[in-house]
Amino acid sequence: MTLREADRVERELVAIVGEANVLRPAPEAYAIDDRRPSLVVFPETSEEIAAVLRLAHARELAVVPMGSGRRLSFGNLLERVDILLSTRRMTRILEYEPADLTASVEAGCTLMAFNRVALPHRQWLPFDPPDADRATLGGIAAVDDFGPLRHGYGRPRDAVIGLEVVQADGTRIRAGGRVVKNVTGYDLNKLFVGSFGTLGVLVRVNFKLRPYPEAEATTLFFDSEWERLESGARQILQSELLPAALMLVNEEAMSALLPDHPRKALLARFLETAPAVVYQMERAKALARSLSLELVELKDEASRSIWEKLGRLHRLLPTDLRLRLSVLPAHTVEALCAGERALDETLARLHILAQPGTGIVHIGGELTSAEERTLSSVVQAIHHLRRTWAAHRGRVIVEHAPPEIKRRVDVWGDVGASLPLMRALKHAFDPKRILSPGRFVAGL
Amino acid sequence: MTLREADRVERELVAIVGEANVLRPAPEAYAIDDRRPSLVVFPETSEEIAAVLRLAHARELAVVPMGSGRRLSFGNLLERVDILLSTRRMTRILEYEPADLTASVEAGCTLMAFNRVALPHRQWLPFDPPDADRATLGGIAAVDDFGPLRHGYGRPRDAVIGLEVVQADGTRIRAGGRVVKNVTGYDLNKLFVGSFGTLGVLVRVNFKLRPYPEAEATTLFFDSEWERLESGARQILQSELLPAALMLVNEEAMSALLPDHPRKALLARFLETAPAVVYQMERAKALARSLSLELVELKDEASRSIWEKLGRLHRLLPTDLRLRLSVLPAHTVEALCAGERALDETLARLHILAQPGTGIVHIGGELTSAEERTLSSVVQAIHHLRRTWAAHRGRVIVEHAPPEIKRRVDVWGDVGASLPLMRALKHAFDPKRILSPGRFVAGL
Repeated sequence: MTLREADRVERELVAIVGEANVLRPAPEAYAIDDRRPSLVVFPETSEEIAAVLRLAHARELAVVPMGSGRRLSFGNLLERVDILLSTRRMTRILEYEPADLTASVEAGCTLMAFNRVALPHRQWLPFDPPDADRATLGGIAAVDDFGPLRHGYGRPRDAVIGLEVVQADGTRIRAGGRVVKNVTGYDLNKLFVGSFGTLGVLVRVNFKLRPYPEAEATTLFFDSEWERLESGARQILQSELLPAALMLVNEEAMSALLPDHPRKALLARFLETAPAVVYQMERAKALARSLSLELVELKDEASRSIWEKLGRLHRLLPTDLRLRLSVLPAHTVEALCAGERALDETLARLHILAQPGTGIVHIGGELTSAEERTLSSVVQAIHHLRRTWAAHRGRVIVEHAPPEIKRRVDVWGDVGASLPLMRALKHAFDPKRILSPGRFVAGL
Repeated sequence: MTLREADRVERELVAIVGEANVLRPAPEAYAIDDRRPSLVVFPETSEEIAAVLRLAHARELAVVPMGSGRRLSFGNLLERVDILLSTRRMTRILEYEPADLTASVEAGCTLMAFNRVALPHRQWLPFDPPDADRATLGGIAAVDDFGPLRHGYGRPRDAVIGLEVVQADGTRIRAGGRVVKNVTGYDLNKLFVGSFGTLGVLVRVNFKLRPYPEAEATTLFFDSEWERLESGARQILQSELLPAALMLVNEEAMSALLPDHPRKALLARFLETAPAVVYQMERAKALARSLSLELVELKDEASRSIWEKLGRLHRLLPTDLRLRLSVLPAHTVEALCAGERALDETLARLHILAQPGTGIVHIGGELTSAEERTLSSVVQAIHHLRRTWAAHRGRVIVEHAPPEIKRRVDVWGDVGASLPLMRALKHAFDPKRILSPGRFVAGL
């Protein structure tokens, strides 16, 4: 943008949202990877968002929607970013009917704020993505962002029943419903979830809720061998035990979570009625005995707290790089070991979280140096993992990396034969490529 | 198609699938509404389907995919139909891992054939659309076709985890996965489900299965007033009773289902462990007493049988017209009465099935005459119902009607602001409009 154009755009944005709600230049804190947006704007209503997008569309300015900003650098490097559009002022709970187990919220409403309102009704949205303490519900839906509770509750995508979206040209549409899913036409709803702000700006999200559990507990199994923890996990999965989360955690991560127990561990979280939690703990104890695994039990607040810490792990441990491998559940430990081997030399304080029930493995750590050699061996490791796992229906996504690495590797990997269709979709929804251009698969 | 062109197309189709698998002209039984396709083709593999579509794409011939054909006239009148593409020969179960609770089948595999294989493992796909005895799984997915079990098990859409699709130009793509949902990119999978063959030809469908219940029973509550049956339904919905299906049935439909009981009824189907079924029946009995409702109980085979009959109701009763109203669940009985009033004069043997748990109301019957006056008053009734219910987030879909009515009314109703987006989607997936052109919302 030229200086004169920026002046004009700033005046127009001020006319839409008021002077107090436009920042120019964007403060350093709003940088995405190594790019600074020209302007940051804080609209208060979906009408204002529509007006901002009409303006951007007319002038072909790139707009990046943002919730809390915690996942802004998830994705390929942006081609350009003119306007950062924050939903910080759109925090209202629009409808909440405890009897229906449904709610409709503005995109900027945080998960914590919503759950605080739902908990007195013994209901909640069972999402626990990284930094869940700050996450907005619009951001969670846009990224389809999940954490350990995915094991028992599914992804946010499964809980989104409807959306209000502002399209790239400023048109406001509804997709899906508020209560029942009696949509006519194509099911657009799920298409926006997990599209990382590349198809439209989510302004309102309708969720179905879950009953909040009466009690909770976490059992931690310790061992020095992954194989024995894995067989523990497999036995749990085949038993009547129904953990809400099941996670393999390596020594480095455990030392940050429970400094007294810096060992490999399997964590199982139970969220149930009080008697069911007691029963499951007993069963877990018997399992530990039969496998000669060391066992620690955490109840209620202590249980909640360790999972919260796990969601903040990348703030407890230095994390320059974070990969997500997704493989068939039976291959979880194999993938975890392969990832560890591939990155062992380039990552320090390498921490691993792996869900044996879903086949999701997260590996993060601190780059041992910023030198060319280190960077290129990380890139090689990513390519190597992708090649190895492609044959076993596995995928490797780079969830977080410095721009120098993102410049050399598509963070999403190959999407195969459906790429032309995805390209056609992007073109149908956003022909001028103004929404988060470059961020998504193959630089869509 | 000119005669010469038809000759050439026939030869090319024969070269792809063999002489025995091309019909020309299409027999009367393959007519869709009042249109007869020029050719019917029966491919055996997805490669053959791809070849048929490449041919059709090059020549801009309209292709309509077909499973059992039971839902072929669901939708607006086709603009044109050159080739009817039947999946009748694609009936294989490709993968079925009982331990994973997932299966992958060819589109032409029937629901019954699959469930026959799954039942010895005590698993099933809990779908019960109309004519479930003939339905193919590809057809069920393409139409997102549901029946009473939607109440307890959700729609087929919720159970589809992945697809293989042949696009309009013959490209084969996969959407979603086979086991876990670790897709990268836009979630295309759900877009094809319920798209009525207008975005691509489903050739392979991956489902997640459910455990098959140990026992079953149905309680029938009878009364002369909808209001009392409705309050019974509401009490069931608010109790710990967990019916898999809950259905209000009018006198006409009941007289076809159980000739001894031609009264208004509320049917609740329980599918559970044996003790849970007994418990729920007891609770249902107590409920009937407290509301002074007459009660009949059907167990096991008798229970199964009444729901099967209900799925064949339109074969038991003459059905020229069938509407689906979907409203907020609390408005079910109001919608049912409004529909009855609106169609009372033009429909004989008017039968009503309504799900008070999901707000779906089906009304069907026999047109009292084929005269202009009757037809135009049916069209007026549809418009009237749409106008009345639009304000209450209700929708009216014409599931079945003679061509004379379809010529005057869009069977899908208004889809609102998302229409341009749906149009753009159709254009992105099928720019030449060769797949079931005209059938979908707004004649897409």
